[in-house]
Amino acid sequence: MGNCAQGCKDYWCRPKNTNIRISLPAVCVVWQTAMIILFGVFIRYDEESDTHWVEHKAHENITSDAENDFYFRYPSFQDVHVMIFVGFGFLMTFLKRYSFGGVGFNFLIASFGLQWALVMQGWFHALDHSTGKIYIGIESLINADFCVAGCLIAYGALLGKVSPVQLMVVTLFGITLFAVEEYIILSLLHCRDAGGSMVIHTFGGYYGLSISWVLYRPNLHQSKRLNGSVYHSDVFAMIGTLFLWMFWPSFNSAITDHGDGQHRAAINTYLGLASTVLTTYAISSLSAHRGKLDMVHIQNATLAGGVAMGTAAEFMIQPYGALIVGFCCGILSTLGYLVFTPFMERVLKIQDTCGIHNLHAMPGVIGGFVGAIVAAAASEEVYGHEGLINTFDFEGAFANRTVLTQGGFQAAGTCVAIAFGIVGGAIVGVILRFPIWGDPADDNCYDDEVYWEVPEDEESLPPILEYNNHMTSKNPEMSESNFSVEQS
Amino acid sequence: MGNCAQGCKDYWCRPKNTNIRISLPAVCVVWQTAMIILFGVFIRYDEESDTHWVEHKAHENITSDAENDFYFRYPSFQDVHVMIFVGFGFLMTFLKRYSFGGVGFNFLIASFGLQWALVMQGWFHALDHSTGKIYIGIESLINADFCVAGCLIAYGALLGKVSPVQLMVVTLFGITLFAVEEYIILSLLHCRDAGGSMVIHTFGGYYGLSISWVLYRPNLHQSKRLNGSVYHSDVFAMIGTLFLWMFWPSFNSAITDHGDGQHRAAINTYLGLASTVLTTYAISSLSAHRGKLDMVHIQNATLAGGVAMGTAAEFMIQPYGALIVGFCCGILSTLGYLVFTPFMERVLKIQDTCGIHNLHAMPGVIGGFVGAIVAAAASEEVYGHEGLINTFDFEGAFANRTVLTQGGFQAAGTCVAIAFGIVGGAIVGVILRFPIWGDPADDNCYDDEVYWEVPEDEESLPPILEYNNHMTSKNPEMSESNFSVEQS
Amino acid sequence: MGNCAQGCKDYWCRPKNTNIRISLPAVCVVWQTAMIILFGVFIRYDEESDTHWVEHKAHENITSDAENDFYFRYPSFQDVHVMIFVGFGFLMTFLKRYSFGGVGFNFLIASFGLQWALVMQGWFHALDHSTGKIYIGIESLINADFCVAGCLIAYGALLGKVSPVQLMVVTLFGITLFAVEEYIILSLLHCRDAGGSMVIHTFGGYYGLSISWVLYRPNLHQSKRLNGSVYHSDVFAMIGTLFLWMFWPSFNSAITDHGDGQHRAAINTYLGLASTVLTTYAISSLSAHRGKLDMVHIQNATLAGGVAMGTAAEFMIQPYGALIVGFCCGILSTLGYLVFTPFMERVLKIQDTCGIHNLHAMPGVIGGFVGAIVAAAASEEVYGHEGLINTFDFEGAFANRTVLTQGGFQAAGTCVAIAFGIVGGAIVGVILRFPIWGDPADDNCYDDEVYWEVPEDEESLPPILEYNNHMTSKNPEMSESNFSVEQS
Repeated sequence: MGNCAQGCKDYWCRPKNTNIRISLPAVCVVWQTAMIILFGVFIRYDEESDTHWVEHKAHENITSDAENDFYFRYPSFQDVHVMIFVGFGFLMTFLKRYSFGGVGFNFLIASFGLQWALVMQGWFHALDHSTGKIYIGIESLINADFCVAGCLIAYGALLGKVSPVQLMVVTLFGITLFAVEEYIILSLLHCRDAGGSMVIHTFGGYYGLSISWVLYRPNLHQSKRLNGSVYHSDVFAMIGTLFLWMFWPSFNSAITDHGDGQHRAAINTYLGLASTVLTTYAISSLSAHRGKLDMVHIQNATLAGGVAMGTAAEFMIQPYGALIVGFCCGILSTLGYLVFTPFMERVLKIQDTCGIHNLHAMPGVIGGFVGAIVAAAASEEVYGHEGLINTFDFEGAFANRTVLTQGGFQAAGTCVAIAFGIVGGAIVGVILRFPIWGDPADDNCYDDEVYWEVPEDEESLPPILEYNNHMTSKNPEMSESNFSVEQS
Repeated sequence: MGNCAQGCKDYWCRPKNTNIRISLPAVCVVWQTAMIILFGVFIRYDEESDTHWVEHKAHENITSDAENDFYFRYPSFQDVHVMIFVGFGFLMTFLKRYSFGGVGFNFLIASFGLQWALVMQGWFHALDHSTGKIYIGIESLINADFCVAGCLIAYGALLGKVSPVQLMVVTLFGITLFAVEEYIILSLLHCRDAGGSMVIHTFGGYYGLSISWVLYRPNLHQSKRLNGSVYHSDVFAMIGTLFLWMFWPSFNSAITDHGDGQHRAAINTYLGLASTVLTTYAISSLSAHRGKLDMVHIQNATLAGGVAMGTAAEFMIQPYGALIVGFCCGILSTLGYLVFTPFMERVLKIQDTCGIHNLHAMPGVIGGFVGAIVAAAASEEVYGHEGLINTFDFEGAFANRTVLTQGGFQAAGTCVAIAFGIVGGAIVGVILRFPIWGDPADDNCYDDEVYWEVPEDEESLPPILEYNNHMTSKNPEMSESNFSVEQS
Repeated sequence: MGNCAQGCKDYWCRPKNTNIRISLPAVCVVWQTAMIILFGVFIRYDEESDTHWVEHKAHENITSDAENDFYFRYPSFQDVHVMIFVGFGFLMTFLKRYSFGGVGFNFLIASFGLQWALVMQGWFHALDHSTGKIYIGIESLINADFCVAGCLIAYGALLGKVSPVQLMVVTLFGITLFAVEEYIILSLLHCRDAGGSMVIHTFGGYYGLSISWVLYRPNLHQSKRLNGSVYHSDVFAMIGTLFLWMFWPSFNSAITDHGDGQHRAAINTYLGLASTVLTTYAISSLSAHRGKLDMVHIQNATLAGGVAMGTAAEFMIQPYGALIVGFCCGILSTLGYLVFTPFMERVLKIQDTCGIHNLHAMPGVIGGFVGAIVAAAASEEVYGHEGLINTFDFEGAFANRTVLTQGGFQAAGTCVAIAFGIVGGAIVGVILRFPIWGDPADDNCYDDEVYWEVPEDEESLPPILEYNNHMTSKNPEMSESNFSVEQS
C-alpha cells in the first residue's frame, strides 16, 4: 500500500496482473475447507429436519406433518433461491461482453456466501448455548439467501471492474458485516424488517457504493466501448428482471408470520411492484426523444417498489398504500438513472455499473422510513389487540413498547444500516486496493476475456463472410499471397 | 375518423406519428393514479390476510395456520405469475427485432391489467354490499392474473403492429369486458371453467382477432423483412413456451377446489399437454420438406392441449380422456398454423402475428365443448354423490340442476365468450383507429427502433471487421482518404 | 445390418438419409395412440385425486384438505418439472448450432417418456391386482419425471449425433429398463434412493455412454467446427445449469417422507451443491492459462454435488457431511472434463458430447456408495428408534434388517444400476445402428439444419453490411455489374 499513500493516480498506474491461477483456487479451496470445519463443529439439523421429529411431534401433540415449517416456507424459499441465482445473475448479463462474469461470479459468491451466512447468522441468532451448536432448518436457508443478497447488490456497483478474488473478499466481509448489523437492527433495536429494506437493500446498496467510491477509476472511460449492451444481452437481462419482479412477493413474505403475515406481505409486494412498472415506463418515455423507452430503466427501476415494500409489506399498509409507495419509487428510481447516476460518477466519483443506488440504496432507505411511518401509525383499531402484538412482536422485553417508539426504532434501524454500509464498504474498499487481487486494468474492464475462456464467435458471420473466413483459415499461404497481389 | 369512412386505404395512407412522449406517460400516470384512488375507496385485505386472522381463527375453530388459503394456492399463484410475465412475455420475443416490445409491453400491460382486474372482478364477484368494500386475498391475485391473460392473448395477434398506448387501451377495455363475460358465464350461467378455456382463451382469442380484423393493414408486406425470427430469438421464445407448458397444470388447478379438485386438474393438464407435444411434432414434421421441424409449431401448438383442458381439467375426464384431447389439439393447432393462418390473412383479412387463433381461440372453443360433453356425461356412479355436488357446485339456487342441463349451459357459456370477444374486439378496434395513438407505419412494424432505444450491435462483428471498424471510427479522416485512394 | 458385420467403417461409410418425414410422424402418432389405449385400459385417478376423496376423508377421519398429498408434493413436483424441461433442455443449448435440437428434442422425448413411465412404473409399483388398474397421483407424476431424467441424461452423451427417431427409441427402451432396474433396486433389494443417485444418474449415465460407445463415429472430427459454443449459447446453457442447480433440493426431497424427510433432504442437497461450486471454480481456474475459467466446467461440474447427494440426502449425513461430498465431487467432476473425457474419446472410443460421465455417471456411483456408507453407519443414537425405522423403512419383510446389511444392499443396488446401464445401452445401441433411423452423417453432426427449419440470420449483420446486402439482393444485376467494374 506504499504507493497508495502518494495518491490514487499511482495506484492505478501500476501495471496490472490479472492472473488469478493461484489466488482464486487458493481462496476457493481454503475457504471451503474452513466452512467444512466450521459446519462440523457448529451446525446440526434443527428439530423439524432431524429424524427425531417423529418423537418431537408426539411430544408436542402435533397431529400433522403439514405443521412442519418446511411446508409453510419451502415454496417461498425456492422463489428466493431463484431470485438470488437467476434473478441477480441474469440481471447482470446486460453488458455486451460481461455476461459470463455477471452470471458466473454471481453464482460463485452466492454459493460461498450462503455457507458463511449460515455460520455467521447462526452465531448471532441461533446458537444454543447449552450444546454450543447452531440448529438449522428451512428458515435458516432463507436467511442465508437473504444475507447473500446484500453482497450481490454490492456486486452490482462493482460489475466488470473487479476480479473474482476481490468479489470473494467483498462477500466474506459483507456477510460478516450483515450478520452484525442485522443483529443490532432486529435483535437489539427490535425492528421488523421482513423483506430487508433496511438490513438487505440499504446496507447492501451503501456497502457497494462505498467500495466503488474507494476503488474509483479515473480512466475507466478507456473501457467505455464495452460498457453497454447489445440487443440479445438486454433480452437476457430481462430474464433476471422478471424473475426478481415475479418472485419479490415471496422474498418479502418468506420469513413473515405464518398465516395472515405471509399472505398480506405477498399481496402488498405484488401491488407495490405493479404500480412501479407504470411510473417507470412513464418517466422513461417522458425523458427520451420521441418517447422511446430505455431498457436500463425497464430492467431496474421496475423493481424499486419491491425494495421499498421490504419493511412495510407485513404491516397493514393497505392495498392503496402499497400502490402509492410503488408509484413514487418508480418515478424516483427512474429519475435516479437519468440524473443521479451521472452526477454520482462526475461529482461524487462513484462508478455504479448497475445503478444500485437507484434500485437498492435509495428505495431501501425509502422502505425503511415508510416502515417507520406505518409502524408509528399502527393502532389496535386497525390491527386488533392480538394482531398488533403479533405483527410487531411486542412480547417479552418489548411488551410495553408503543407503536410510536417502534416507529422511532425502525427509523434508527435504517440509519444503522446506512452507517454499516458506508463505513464497512470503505474499509473493505481499502483492503481491495492491495495489489494482490488480480483486478483488471482500466482499459480491460467489462471484458470476459480477462477471466474466462471465451468462445470465438465465427458463427455470427454472415454466410459469405464465413466462406471467405474458412478459405483464409484453411489456406493461410494462399490468402497471404492474395493479399500481396492486392497490394501490388 | 372522417377519413376512415372513405375506406381503409385512406386511413392507412395517413402519415404516422409514432411519438408517444406525451401519450404514454400521460396514460400511465393518470391511470395509475386512478387505480390508487379506486383501491383507496374499495379495496381491503380479506379476513385471511388481515391481522384479525388470529381472532377469526379462534372464532372459527381453525387449529392450524395451514388452513389459510395462502398455503393451498400460493405455489400455484407463483406459477401462474411466471406464466403471465415470463411465459407470455418470452413467447413473444421470437421476432428478430421485436423482442424488447414482446417482453417489455407484455410487462407493462400485465402490470396495469392486474390492478384494474382486481377492481373490476371485485365489483362483480367480491363486493361486500354492507361495507361497500372489496376484500382481496390470494385467490383474487390469481383471478387478476387470469384476467390479464385474456388481454395478453389478444396482444399476440397485434404483436408488432400497435403502439404501447394502444395496448393500454386494449387492456383497459379487455379487462372490463372480461369481468362482464366472466360474471355472465360463471355466475349467471353457473358454468365451471377453472382454467378458463371459455372465459380466458376463447374470449381473449376472439377479442384479439377481432381487433386485428378492424386494424387490417393491406400493406403490411412492407415490413415483411422483420416478420420472422433469428436463431437466438427462437431460443428465447422457447423459454416462454416451456414455462407456459410446465406451469399450465398450476394454471388449470390454481382456483379449483382444495384437495382432489386441484390434484385432479393438475394431473389432467399434465397429461393433455404431454400428448399434444407428440402430435405437434408429428404434423410439423409431416408437413415439411425432409421432415424438418418448424419452430413456430413447436413454440405454440405444443400448448394447445393445456388450453383445451381448461374447463374439463377438474372433471373426471380420466387420464386417457386428457390424452385424447391433447392428441387432437396438437394436430388441429399445427394444421391451423399451416393452413388456417395464411387463409385467414388472405381471405378473412385478419393478420395474426402469433397465431393466437390456433393456440387460444380454436383450442379454447374445443375446451369449452369438451367441458360441456364431459359435464353432460357426469354421473353419481363415477363422481360419487357428494363428489358430483362438489365438482359442479350444485348448491343453493342450482341444487336441482341436472348434469345434462349443466352441459347445455357450459356450451352456452362458450358461445357467450365468442360473442363478447368478437363484438368487444370490433368496438375496441374502431377506437384504436383514432389517429392519436402513435401506431407504427406499415413499413415500420415489428421494429423495436420505433418505441425503444436499441443498442448498436457492433460487437456482433467478427474480430477483423471490428478492427477495421475501430480504425474507421477513431480516424475518420484517414479512412476517408483511404477510401478515395482505393477509388482512384 | 449385413454391412455392419464387416466392421464399423462400412457402417459409417453408408450414405446417410436424414429424411424423417415418414418415420418421425409415424413413431409419434403410433406410440401416442398406444399410450391412449394403455391409459384407457390401466390408468385411473388415485383416491386423493378422485372425486370420492370427500368420502375417503370422512372415512379416514382426515380433517383437513391440507393432508392431501398434493400439498406436500406439488411445489417440489413443479420444481422437478422445470428441471426436466428447462434444466436439461437449456443445458443442452450450449452448442453454437444445435440449440433447437438441444431444447426441442429434450421436449419431445420427455413428453413421450413421462407417459410411458406412468404405465411402466405403474405396472411394477402401483398395479392393484384386484381391479387390474394403476392409480396415479402427484407422486406418480414426480416418479414419471424422474424416470424421464434417466433418458435425458443419456441424450446428453448423444447430443448432436442422433436423429429424433433414434431418441424416441432410446427413450422407449430407457424407460422400460429404468422401471425394471428401479423395481429390483427399490423393491427387491429394498434400497433407499430418494434422489436417484443410483436408479437415475448411474443408470442414465452408463446407459448413454454405452449407446455412445456402440455408435462410435471415427470421423466425427468432420463436424468439429460445430462442436463448440458461441458467446450467447453459453449464456443460454447457464439458464439450464442454474435451474437444475437451484431446484435440485426439490429433486432430492420430492418423494422423501413427509415432514423431516423432505426437510432434511432439501438442506443436505442445498449444502452439497454450494460446496461443489467452489471446488469447481478452483479446479477450472487452476487448470487453465492465467486462471481463466471454462464455461464447460461451470455449466456442468457445479451440479455434481446434487447428483452425489441423491441417495444420502434423506439420511443423517449432517450438514458438514454434505459439504464434504460436494467438495470432492466438484474436484472430481471438473477433473473428469479435463482428463477423462478426452481419454474416453481417444482410448475407450466413447464420444460424450455433454460429458455425462463427469456430471452423472461418476457422481452417481459416488452417491450410491456414499449412501451405502452413511446407511451402514446409521445408529439409533443418531436417528432415534422410530427415526431409524422410518428413514430406512425397516418394516414388514425388512423389519429385522440391520443398518450394516442395508449398507451392503445399497452398494449392491449401485452395481445393479451400472449393469443395467451398460448392458441395456449396448443392446439399444445395436438397435440404433439399423440404417432406418435417419441419423446424420459424420460431417453433419451438431447441426440444426438437418432436422429443423433454421431462420436465416441476416439481421446479425452490422448496419453497413446489411445495407449493402439489401442493395445486392434488390438489384442483383447492378451489384454484379459493379463487381465487374471493380475488377476491371
